[in-house]
Amino acid sequence: MTEAVLIRQEGAVRILVNNNPAARNAITMGLYTGLPKALAEAQADPEVGAIVLTGAGDFFCSGGDLKQLATRRELSLVQRREKLEGLHTLIRAIRNCNKPVIAAVEGGAAGAGLSIALACDMLVAARDAFFSVAYVKVGLTPDGGVTAFLAEFVSRQILTELCLTGDRISGERLHAMGAVNRLTDKGAALTEAIALATRLTTGPARASARIKNLCQHAYGADLEAQMELEAQHMVESQGDDEAAEGIAAFLTKRAANFVALRDK
Amino acid sequence: MTEAVLIRQEGAVRILVNNNPAARNAITMGLYTGLPKALAEAQADPEVGAIVLTGAGDFFCSGGDLKQLATRRELSLVQRREKLEGLHTLIRAIRNCNKPVIAAVEGGAAGAGLSIALACDMLVAARDAFFSVAYVKVGLTPDGGVTAFLAEFVSRQILTELCLTGDRISGERLHAMGAVNRLTDKGAALTEAIALATRLTTGPARASARIKNLCQHAYGADLEAQMELEAQHMVESQGDDEAAEGIAAFLTKRAANFVALRDK
Amino acid sequence: MTEAVLIRQEGAVRILVNNNPAARNAITMGLYTGLPKALAEAQADPEVGAIVLTGAGDFFCSGGDLKQLATRRELSLVQRREKLEGLHTLIRAIRNCNKPVIAAVEGGAAGAGLSIALACDMLVAARDAFFSVAYVKVGLTPDGGVTAFLAEFVSRQILTELCLTGDRISGERLHAMGAVNRLTDKGAALTEAIALATRLTTGPARASARIKNLCQHAYGADLEAQMELEAQHMVESQGDDEAAEGIAAFLTKRAANFVALRDK
Repeated sequence: MTEAVLIRQEGAVRILVNNNPAARNAITMGLYTGLPKALAEAQADPEVGAIVLTGAGDFFCSGGDLKQLATRRELSLVQRREKLEGLHTLIRAIRNCNKPVIAAVEGGAAGAGLSIALACDMLVAARDAFFSVAYVKVGLTPDGGVTAFLAEFVSRQILTELCLTGDRISGERLHAMGAVNRLTDKGAALTEAIALATRLTTGPARASARIKNLCQHAYGADLEAQMELEAQHMVESQGDDEAAEGIAAFLTKRAANFVALRDK
Repeated sequence: MTEAVLIRQEGAVRILVNNNPAARNAITMGLYTGLPKALAEAQADPEVGAIVLTGAGDFFCSGGDLKQLATRRELSLVQRREKLEGLHTLIRAIRNCNKPVIAAVEGGAAGAGLSIALACDMLVAARDAFFSVAYVKVGLTPDGGVTAFLAEFVSRQILTELCLTGDRISGERLHAMGAVNRLTDKGAALTEAIALATRLTTGPARASARIKNLCQHAYGADLEAQMELEAQHMVESQGDDEAAEGIAAFLTKRAANFVALRDK
Repeated sequence: MTEAVLIRQEGAVRILVNNNPAARNAITMGLYTGLPKALAEAQADPEVGAIVLTGAGDFFCSGGDLKQLATRRELSLVQRREKLEGLHTLIRAIRNCNKPVIAAVEGGAAGAGLSIALACDMLVAARDAFFSVAYVKVGLTPDGGVTAFLAEFVSRQILTELCLTGDRISGERLHAMGAVNRLTDKGAALTEAIALATRLTTGPARASARIKNLCQHAYGADLEAQMELEAQHMVESQGDDEAAEGIAAFLTKRAANFVALRDK
């Protein structure tokens, strides 16, 4: 049987590959269980500093399996709701993983595939890759948090257009909209994502986990609530060996060595 | 007596015209009652798939009637507050209408006219049309939700400037800021808006209503709350004939026919 | 002893200068007490219409004092948390001041210096000034509301990159991201900020205070809540002499004179 998630390691970077290339990496039941499991393992592994999520071959993910979805109408509302938990669990696993997760998108990210790409902390995309909130084309409505993720950076006018038309936008346009960290030539997204991830692995791991948590709560947060969360993390950071090393290195004008301070 | 709202139909598109051209379509009492009524009729009419809102002649709306506003100081605070309900009712009627509403802006949208333009789901604007949070120029403060609508896509620094100066920005700049779906030459906004609306009328009507609801709640929403709303809409969509048709069409590589499935 | 905050007046503009040029205007204990005090005085002074905040010499603020921060690990969590109140008090003093505060940034704004720059209502920056969420470089995590302020205008993907890398971005890039009101040549930020502030001093002072309050609450607010806040401010504005003057001036096609109506 084909593995739903292929797992590789390059230096301190864990690479997770959505592996269903025969169907442009459409989401499989195996991905729903396999990806959260792989993320949990990466989180627990002291050899992993950052994670890259990509698709097998030259495509990120074409979304849900329409043959499966066609049978959902025969289920009760409650049963259908239960089936959606697989995607929610996967999205939460990306958001709550305490190591940075970078999506590397070639080809396209459509439907729930777009939800997964935007759930990641950063996004590296090939210029010609396409992104589509495809659901409406088959009479469905968006899920997996994609409307929340898009609202973090696009106007309601554009959000509505993307969701009502399902039109594709290019990596280039998504970059102009401000959601792409590195725009690459075709075929170069994975290499660039690994380079960015590798750089992150040299940072302070525990401070980075706190930063991910802050970024996750920053949208729509009340200023007082966000300042309080920042303060809680700051007092922990101030007591951490990472800050002692970082400040000492700065004051003596040498490079900080955070890698030696990682949890084992 | 002049009708405050002119109503036309082109194919499945309902066109609503703010009609007070002698005063650059300044808001009339008739608009406060007439526009919500016209939107309710359009929502109830199975022949209507989408709505375009525009202004008579070559101007969208110059905002409130200053002669009327000048007399408000003689009213009590409670009476003034009641008078504001007309605008709130109008804004809510646009936001809560379950069919997409597209603003077609020529000339300008100022004060409450800007609130109305930004309350719509999408915005088509002539390149040289102007947009102004004009209130401060006459010693007033913004209303009709315009500060919330602008905050969906501009920085607090720019929001503050626009509100404290009342300066005009062009359709071209608003497009660069990301809130214009189609930027047109002067005189072409209505035609372009009708074309965009016509395209939306071929989509799945009930799924589109759910999508509008999702877009409305996406800003400032907690991720979990938004995923839950998406899930509730998704289980309904999965049981809808629209999804059966859309998925079947996709799997057999034919065009979906959603129009036949509209509520009658 | 050197004053932590230098205070000057140009016309109706109060200029507050963060004065620690020997350390690129790193935050001093004096700033924590002096800046809120200077803002309160400017708020109370009828001769002040707007405020400009800048740094002595050619730098805005390089953030916290790292030698001080290095000693925080010896304190208890509770004691560390108390020490953070100085920055919170300063940020709140900027946000809650009822007159507009414009940051004029030359050189750079790093760490808590960036928090302070973004807490201001508007931002004038030299093209080559740099902005950095520097904390992670010394093993710390952001505070002073900077993650909330950035989330008002950048995507989560870019927010995460800026916070996890501490990379510098230029005034030019921050302008392209939409958070800079006026981009200037090197050395011209203060002059431009004073010009912008001077213009604001001719506006209606009480309406402007209400507008600042609206802008402050617009991000992440529910539409109904924001419309209600707008309505509360509007009924007050309608009863204010500023509106009487503004509307009368508009209807008789003369310039409004709001300055004569300022609270004494």
